Amino acid sequence: MGNKITSRKEDYSKWYNDIVINADLAENSEVRGCMVIKPYGFSIWELMKKELDQMFKDTGHQNAYFPLFVPKSLFEAEEKNAEGFAKECAIVTHYRLKNDPKKKGKLILDPESKLEEELIVRPTSEAVIWKTYKKWIQSYRDLPILINQWANVVRWEMRTRLFLRTSEFLWQEGHTAHSTKDEAMSECLLINNIYAEFAEKFMAMPVLKGSKSEAERFAGAEETLCIEALMQDGKALQAGTSHFLGQNFAKAFDVKFADKSGKLDYVWATSWGVSTRLMGALIMTHSDDKGLVLPPNLAPTQVVIIPMIKSEESKNKIEELSDKIFNDLKSNGVRVKIDSRENFTLGYKLNDYELKGIPIRLVIGQQEIENDEYEIFSRDDFNKIKSNSDDILNNIIKSLDDVQNRMLSKAKKRLNDNTHEVSSYDKFKEIIESQSGFVYCGWDGEASSEESIKKETKATIRCIVGNGEDKDLKCIYSGNPAKHKVIFAKSY
Amino acid sequence: MGNKITSRKEDYSKWYNDIVINADLAENSEVRGCMVIKPYGFSIWELMKKELDQMFKDTGHQNAYFPLFVPKSLFEAEEKNAEGFAKECAIVTHYRLKNDPKKKGKLILDPESKLEEELIVRPTSEAVIWKTYKKWIQSYRDLPILINQWANVVRWEMRTRLFLRTSEFLWQEGHTAHSTKDEAMSECLLINNIYAEFAEKFMAMPVLKGSKSEAERFAGAEETLCIEALMQDGKALQAGTSHFLGQNFAKAFDVKFADKSGKLDYVWATSWGVSTRLMGALIMTHSDDKGLVLPPNLAPTQVVIIPMIKSEESKNKIEELSDKIFNDLKSNGVRVKIDSRENFTLGYKLNDYELKGIPIRLVIGQQEIENDEYEIFSRDDFNKIKSNSDDILNNIIKSLDDVQNRMLSKAKKRLNDNTHEVSSYDKFKEIIESQSGFVYCGWDGEASSEESIKKETKATIRCIVGNGEDKDLKCIYSGNPAKHKVIFAKSY
Repeated sequence: MGNKITSRKEDYSKWYNDIVINADLAENSEVRGCMVIKPYGFSIWELMKKELDQMFKDTGHQNAYFPLFVPKSLFEAEEKNAEGFAKECAIVTHYRLKNDPKKKGKLILDPESKLEEELIVRPTSEAVIWKTYKKWIQSYRDLPILINQWANVVRWEMRTRLFLRTSEFLWQEGHTAHSTKDEAMSECLLINNIYAEFAEKFMAMPVLKGSKSEAERFAGAEETLCIEALMQDGKALQAGTSHFLGQNFAKAFDVKFADKSGKLDYVWATSWGVSTRLMGALIMTHSDDKGLVLPPNLAPTQVVIIPMIKSEESKNKIEELSDKIFNDLKSNGVRVKIDSRENFTLGYKLNDYELKGIPIRLVIGQQEIENDEYEIFSRDDFNKIKSNSDDILNNIIKSLDDVQNRMLSKAKKRLNDNTHEVSSYDKFKEIIESQSGFVYCGWDGEASSEESIKKETKATIRCIVGNGEDKDLKCIYSGNPAKHKVIFAKSY
Repeated sequence: MGNKITSRKEDYSKWYNDIVINADLAENSEVRGCMVIKPYGFSIWELMKKELDQMFKDTGHQNAYFPLFVPKSLFEAEEKNAEGFAKECAIVTHYRLKNDPKKKGKLILDPESKLEEELIVRPTSEAVIWKTYKKWIQSYRDLPILINQWANVVRWEMRTRLFLRTSEFLWQEGHTAHSTKDEAMSECLLINNIYAEFAEKFMAMPVLKGSKSEAERFAGAEETLCIEALMQDGKALQAGTSHFLGQNFAKAFDVKFADKSGKLDYVWATSWGVSTRLMGALIMTHSDDKGLVLPPNLAPTQVVIIPMIKSEESKNKIEELSDKIFNDLKSNGVRVKIDSRENFTLGYKLNDYELKGIPIRLVIGQQEIENDEYEIFSRDDFNKIKSNSDDILNNIIKSLDDVQNRMLSKAKKRLNDNTHEVSSYDKFKEIIESQSGFVYCGWDGEASSEESIKKETKATIRCIVGNGEDKDLKCIYSGNPAKHKVIFAKSY
């Protein structure tokens, strides 16, 4: 099977890759930088999608679909956005292949099929969407527009890592249009809060919320809100962003609306997204040296029942009880499966379910039946709870809740333990170099201080969390009065 | 509003386009041949996806995701497949733009970013998937593989029509691998039956099932099964295909498995798909000159309740009853909405819901309350059923069933009325030219007869439905003994 997982201590980066590969989540494809998301990995992503999609719909958003390609002239329209993505985009130049006259069975570009205007494979869809919104928006009655799309995007990456950084990835991108600045800002905040709630409630992953410094902002945004999670190696991972785009795209695409008095003004915009990167965050938040650990709320299989049949005499009783528990759990909405495969040993099965992070497992054999005592095994802490058959349904359901809560508490504790507040740059450097984690401090708001810190320590501002509330706060770098309270960390 | 729909009689093609545009389903984008699927259109597609996805999962299939790009060398590997798609594919040649030195703010291809090997935007994913399956398959224990993906694909089209033929479209593509020919053939058949069941049960669209002639087969397949529906203008629409790929892709990518005795053999394959083209089929099967008509099973809103408040005195009672019916329907799983917008007239609302094809509508005003008599309006036949408030929940639920059944019956009747069996070529031509529809006849199995008929009448073999059962059957074209019984039609 070759599912030996490198330990975190030995090589954190290899540990991550081993889990992705051995738990059957994803693998590299033949296409540089693009991954294959395998069925098990994809089923986790499907659960994430389902929950997020419902949260978006509950807050009035609708799904739609916009083209994969962005004509170059549209791509150029919002200059900062274009500049931000120009260096990492896949470009379609031709629309036909023809037989290679020199090599039988081989194909070459047909030069006659050269496009008049190149098409960019979308790295993000603001341009193509705002060109469309121009047609949809005339008056305040057409606003707000609250649209989301689930799609693939391409950003050409030189160094890729499964889920965390791939040239093609899957994501959702929301694009909203509003008649006032306040309404757009509220939307931006609403979504960032949804992201944080999703991370905590479903991924059991606590996050910090804040806004980005100008250097870290989305290209074309006036403000970027974000959620930042802390991985087990002390590095931060940006898990979701919500952008206030001001009137930048409305101006680039000339999208105006008439208010009630008939006065024309440019439309206000937001855009926001989370991607398959969340899979990487989920894996790195909870997994251990035995494999993947999944929170029940996102586990495709929450409970696995393994009947262990050694003799014909106990076979019926074991199967009967297994089926009963299976059906009871299923009718209570639990995602459960029975593994009665005969050509695999119990040892193999236990190992495989540990590797794949199934939250709860239950082995039912002759001895368990005879004693009417069953062990409910929890993957996250390897604890076993004993139960008789009468209480087993309730005990399993309760255990699922316990696992979810325990995983969140554990992740919260780690976040707290690795969050520091410092006032001297020496201490700052010491923490960043030795243990990393989140470091709170003051910042004078100067890009030069931010850049120097990045150059000297590799730490970047993950988010701004305060704006001058503390009058005595000094910039960690310049010693000048701090403009913002910020969080620094090394990051993915 | 400009929602005047051209009548079918006046201009069928314009009628279709008017419905797509005015019912807010989709529109052309700035990108040649690519469409924007608008929220209302997309919500219908989401329901289709949900139902099909469940049917696939219920039969043991899992979702996964494979790369958007196919390197040219993989694309070439299965020659017939490559030949079939080479002339209509978008090709990525560069991965970076740079500033145009001649024009400020403009971007040009960076020649230094030219790819060593061109990437084809997937027109279908057999190549990239079979290259992956090679890594996954060693022995019979790794089989079958039953995978589906929901994805976008690109086939460069010169003449496009919203939903029916677009350069980019959304679809699902199943790709399965099997250890025996029989198993692969059964899979192929299973899926074609699922497609037919979905069409009938959810789309209320009866279809014919059969297999394709060689000329109409998928490039790289040994057999293509299909479902064919009949549109209101008498033209056929291929609504889904399921391909038996034999060992063609296994050979092209050298995918072998060891059977129980250790003997190596090539793997057997199928692939199958339906696309956003189904939206076109749905629209053209049921809609009328007033707009879209949706079967309740695929209607994002199945019932709309319109409170009509003219005075303060009846306001409370009207709102109370509207809310009660809304809640009762909702808790019975009905997709219902209340439209209490005050800035739109009743006339506008009625018109808009007719245009958008909401199956059932209910207006509640003072008079209805006073008489305790309500009219349940069905969009498909414009009939109104009277009900008192006590029975209204049951009557609405029953009406939804009735609409679904009536729509299917009507479509079946149309299919039957427009299906003909002929034995003379003169009669054949007369029917194809005058009224079109499905024409059953004999075919000698010769590509030359098929091609001549196509040239002379524009009709093609939609599917083969019999193989020599009728010994007396003659080929409609050559008069020679028929090898197959087939269905001809003009088609989309």
